[in-house]
Amino acid sequence: MDLTTIKDPSFLEDLTIEELENLSEDIRNFLIDVTSKTGGHIGPNLGVVELTVALHKVFDSPKDKFLWDVGHQSYVHKILTGRTGQFETLKKYKGLSGFPKRSESEHDVWETGHSSTSLSAAMGMVIARDIKGTDEYILPIIGDGALTGGMALEALNHIGHEKKDMIVILNDNEMSIAPNVGALHNILGRLRTAGKYHWVKDELEYILRKIPAVGGKLADAAERIKDSMKYLLVSGVFFEELGYTYLGPVDGHNYEALLENLQYAKKTKGPVLVHVITKKGKGYHPAESDKIGTWHGPGPYKIDSGDFIKPASSPPAWSKVISETVRKVARSDKRVVAITPAMTVGSKLEGFGQEFPDRLFDVGIAEQHAVTMAAGLATQGMKPYLAIYSTFLQRGYDQVVHDVCRQNLNVFFGIDRSGLVGADGETHQGVFDISFLRHVPNLVLMMPKDENEGQHMVNTAIQYDDGPIALRYPRGNGLGVEMEEELKTIPIGTWEVLQDGTDFAILTFGTTIPMALEAAERLAQEGISVKVVNARFIKPFDEKMLMDLLEEDMPLLTIEESMLQGGFGSAVLEYAHDHGFHQAKIDRMGIPDVFVEHGSVNELLEEIGLTVEAAVTKIHAIHSKLQKRA
Amino acid sequence: MDLTTIKDPSFLEDLTIEELENLSEDIRNFLIDVTSKTGGHIGPNLGVVELTVALHKVFDSPKDKFLWDVGHQSYVHKILTGRTGQFETLKKYKGLSGFPKRSESEHDVWETGHSSTSLSAAMGMVIARDIKGTDEYILPIIGDGALTGGMALEALNHIGHEKKDMIVILNDNEMSIAPNVGALHNILGRLRTAGKYHWVKDELEYILRKIPAVGGKLADAAERIKDSMKYLLVSGVFFEELGYTYLGPVDGHNYEALLENLQYAKKTKGPVLVHVITKKGKGYHPAESDKIGTWHGPGPYKIDSGDFIKPASSPPAWSKVISETVRKVARSDKRVVAITPAMTVGSKLEGFGQEFPDRLFDVGIAEQHAVTMAAGLATQGMKPYLAIYSTFLQRGYDQVVHDVCRQNLNVFFGIDRSGLVGADGETHQGVFDISFLRHVPNLVLMMPKDENEGQHMVNTAIQYDDGPIALRYPRGNGLGVEMEEELKTIPIGTWEVLQDGTDFAILTFGTTIPMALEAAERLAQEGISVKVVNARFIKPFDEKMLMDLLEEDMPLLTIEESMLQGGFGSAVLEYAHDHGFHQAKIDRMGIPDVFVEHGSVNELLEEIGLTVEAAVTKIHAIHSKLQKRA
Repeated sequence: MDLTTIKDPSFLEDLTIEELENLSEDIRNFLIDVTSKTGGHIGPNLGVVELTVALHKVFDSPKDKFLWDVGHQSYVHKILTGRTGQFETLKKYKGLSGFPKRSESEHDVWETGHSSTSLSAAMGMVIARDIKGTDEYILPIIGDGALTGGMALEALNHIGHEKKDMIVILNDNEMSIAPNVGALHNILGRLRTAGKYHWVKDELEYILRKIPAVGGKLADAAERIKDSMKYLLVSGVFFEELGYTYLGPVDGHNYEALLENLQYAKKTKGPVLVHVITKKGKGYHPAESDKIGTWHGPGPYKIDSGDFIKPASSPPAWSKVISETVRKVARSDKRVVAITPAMTVGSKLEGFGQEFPDRLFDVGIAEQHAVTMAAGLATQGMKPYLAIYSTFLQRGYDQVVHDVCRQNLNVFFGIDRSGLVGADGETHQGVFDISFLRHVPNLVLMMPKDENEGQHMVNTAIQYDDGPIALRYPRGNGLGVEMEEELKTIPIGTWEVLQDGTDFAILTFGTTIPMALEAAERLAQEGISVKVVNARFIKPFDEKMLMDLLEEDMPLLTIEESMLQGGFGSAVLEYAHDHGFHQAKIDRMGIPDVFVEHGSVNELLEEIGLTVEAAVTKIHAIHSKLQKRA
Repeated sequence: MDLTTIKDPSFLEDLTIEELENLSEDIRNFLIDVTSKTGGHIGPNLGVVELTVALHKVFDSPKDKFLWDVGHQSYVHKILTGRTGQFETLKKYKGLSGFPKRSESEHDVWETGHSSTSLSAAMGMVIARDIKGTDEYILPIIGDGALTGGMALEALNHIGHEKKDMIVILNDNEMSIAPNVGALHNILGRLRTAGKYHWVKDELEYILRKIPAVGGKLADAAERIKDSMKYLLVSGVFFEELGYTYLGPVDGHNYEALLENLQYAKKTKGPVLVHVITKKGKGYHPAESDKIGTWHGPGPYKIDSGDFIKPASSPPAWSKVISETVRKVARSDKRVVAITPAMTVGSKLEGFGQEFPDRLFDVGIAEQHAVTMAAGLATQGMKPYLAIYSTFLQRGYDQVVHDVCRQNLNVFFGIDRSGLVGADGETHQGVFDISFLRHVPNLVLMMPKDENEGQHMVNTAIQYDDGPIALRYPRGNGLGVEMEEELKTIPIGTWEVLQDGTDFAILTFGTTIPMALEAAERLAQEGISVKVVNARFIKPFDEKMLMDLLEEDMPLLTIEESMLQGGFGSAVLEYAHDHGFHQAKIDRMGIPDVFVEHGSVNELLEEIGLTVEAAVTKIHAIHSKLQKRA
């Protein structure tokens, strides 16, 4: 069918199973076609085609509420709720979001991006419903990977206890972003191999009632009971113990099984967990046979071959440079252990893992545990390297404060995807880390100007033994600079003058350095001489250099791709005033007090006014104001 | 015995059970005696006397490593490791910490304060041990309450999966700080009632092997099998499923049972969970019969009567004023729902719960879940009030950013124990919240000058429907001001001039207001006229008032009982420079870039230089400098 004609999911009510299957095929073809051009989370979405259709057929959205955990698997839901025509703009500036978005549709009742939030939010909605006395169904849809996140487990525990009506859909695809880890994963594995859905207690009672009838064949009976024991052990008893009615496992690509179980769940009181087995990438061979997560959320690709369309020759990815340098140093430094919360591929730690299989720990989606496990390692003289995205480190904030920095332990944080990340949008922008880390005592925080300085900073961090140290680096590729063979250490708290100047100084670091250099070049043409400083240590400062600038009464402009509140520029203001420089002419550029939505990084920088043009204009204005005074 | 003669735990090796029991009595008497004078966590410590002694007898600390989760139950451990003589200084300035402290003893290998960290840290230590090839035992000791914290569950999952040797001691006292909640608690309840320790799988196999011998009595056999089923269901299968060898339940006050099980655990490979049942307050009647947590960590008390020693008549506690006002407003506003992460008593929500049992949710130690559940409630038009200590809100930082503020939901945060908390020390100081909240878009952040303004702010927050709003308030008692009968709303973003002045202005809020007023009074005597502003909205500012002050070129001093980095003063600097006031004379007082240890709040304020004296001196210096220039 023409998917663009879908306005809402009500048309599903009358469709036969055969028609649903045809619809599924149309949806799959559409998804493959569109994401081959736009990129996007194709693997997860191909896996939930039947599940999403079945949910919309059995339940009545938006009265009934679907909460898509993480949310990157909501494309089919978007199609069924009238957004097919907008898919050409997927993840583009002002276009369709890659995640549920309340402003897009009344069917999007909960916005996600970070994992493991759906159960807690659903519990809030259930409580609200019961207080108000309405009767809608609340359905969080959570993957097996997201289920190991601490907050999901907190919620699982609370929901099982409260016994209120809720239908939890466990979308078990055996592999979320990365291969799953954790004991819970083993339990799910045993459940999957049980091979058919069942209601444990009923079956057991049935077997027990039959025993007397078996007559003399006691050995047989015992055997069967043993089987039932095993059955019990591999069945949903884990979830039953937690207070849920367990339904499953259900074949997530079989409409009959899905519809039957969802209807059964609808009639069941109290919390129900429907265990649905899906196959990531289902129906598209290259994605279906993916074992390590390459097809989780790729860029554009060629449909026939499954080859990714990449720019001819791009500089190496930042993650690759950083992780490979950690690997290099780990060869001679046996203390180095790498930890990642489910981001082995994203953080490009595969090489490290191949070379040091006993020194890489993928702990699953468990950021809090990852940070504190690193602290535990550090107490024993090890040098843990925690590779974590800026936006996900938010989950470990308390652990950074309370466990790592308070005890002043030698943990090395590699803060990946710092700054604007672009297409993933407001849930993933790595723009808060400076503001939430700068006030934590004992932490060293740095950012390199290019990948060569990046490799030296990795070495610096591993050699540093006076406490925690964090190296933030951006998403995407490096600048393509030459990489020095020998690793150096950079003295802690030293900045670097990239270009000298006498009228004005720009203090900046990381991704905004090219912008500053270009602004300086343009201003030079007008006779304004601008010094550009690579303020690579965000904490501690190069006090000597800053003090010199303040004493010279040099007007300063700070530029950062980071929140202005409490950021680097704010630290410069603090330093100046705390040291009595009340006349210091300090201006700041950075990210204003809003959540920045999705789009290309350049479009977003333009939107928030973080551009060469803006820097030039700002310095112009300040310069002429100062000249007027003089 | 004379406990002060204990230098280390080695003397335990030769003691008989009877001698151990005598020692336990001595320890209990000592604990009661000392905490009746100093206050402290008496309940939890009386509960773990035998457990701690048995651990130190069976294992070899500090080679073997004990990680005391939360850590308030480490007093017995401190006695056995040679610190008896320091107990008179317990929780006092420069005295013995109420928590494990690495600087106190080599036997304290992991510092705690916040809950649920021990399993993650232990996993780090286990990995370090296995890489180094040493053979020490690693033993996290975690309560049933702390086990429901998300990070503990993340770790439980990872540890069960990795199968490395670790002995987890589950100290199950049926009631941690507050009565436990959660499905896990129900499971533990069933385990407790099973009544004896057992190894499930062995027993089942035994029963099954016996069946043929039962002869014709099939019904009997079936009955017994049914029992064994029940047994299985109530047994440690939950933990076995997660990958642990489950030992228990063990009577935590019976040395024979404890020693036998710990020895067994020592010989068992892979992760072991020893389920120890203890009684909080054991051996001291008033504490033992406590049902709601009054004896968790009380102040001084009379030993004979169990009466608490309190100052004659103190003003009402801040928590009480705030929670009772929420209750008052909730009578007419049905949208109000209160949420607490295991702090019903601490946050004084008992009254609310009595009046609105269906509208109070104690979710257990689960801060992340609490924040996002509040967000879920808000999406449905409810007005959730989340009562949470400043230091524990650190656990919910990502949820505040990603779930509440990003979606601009009407969640009302009551941030209890903001600022210095005193005796609980560096793990509990509520000094980071301004710095970790100020940069989050959409959030309103306020602090009242006294409990009367506090009640109006509660009303303001509940009436406010434009997004998230947070009311921070200090630990301890209010000022004893008169409470107005009728609740008002305070216009968002308005400050208040408490005292006018022409030479200088102090901008401050909350607990530091009396300090500012006193400084102003002293300076007035010297002819320096100081304006004192109650900057009750930390975000957003009273832009009109601040702009007026800046335009008047008034020298400003900001005072805050909060981190200086990224704090309120920093926000004033940002505002001034962003609005072109580069000549603004702004100075700041607050908490410097260190973790502040334990002591009375006044001692700590003295230590960090946050005093009337310091403010007067600072203003003097600035004033004379300015006069020299003029």
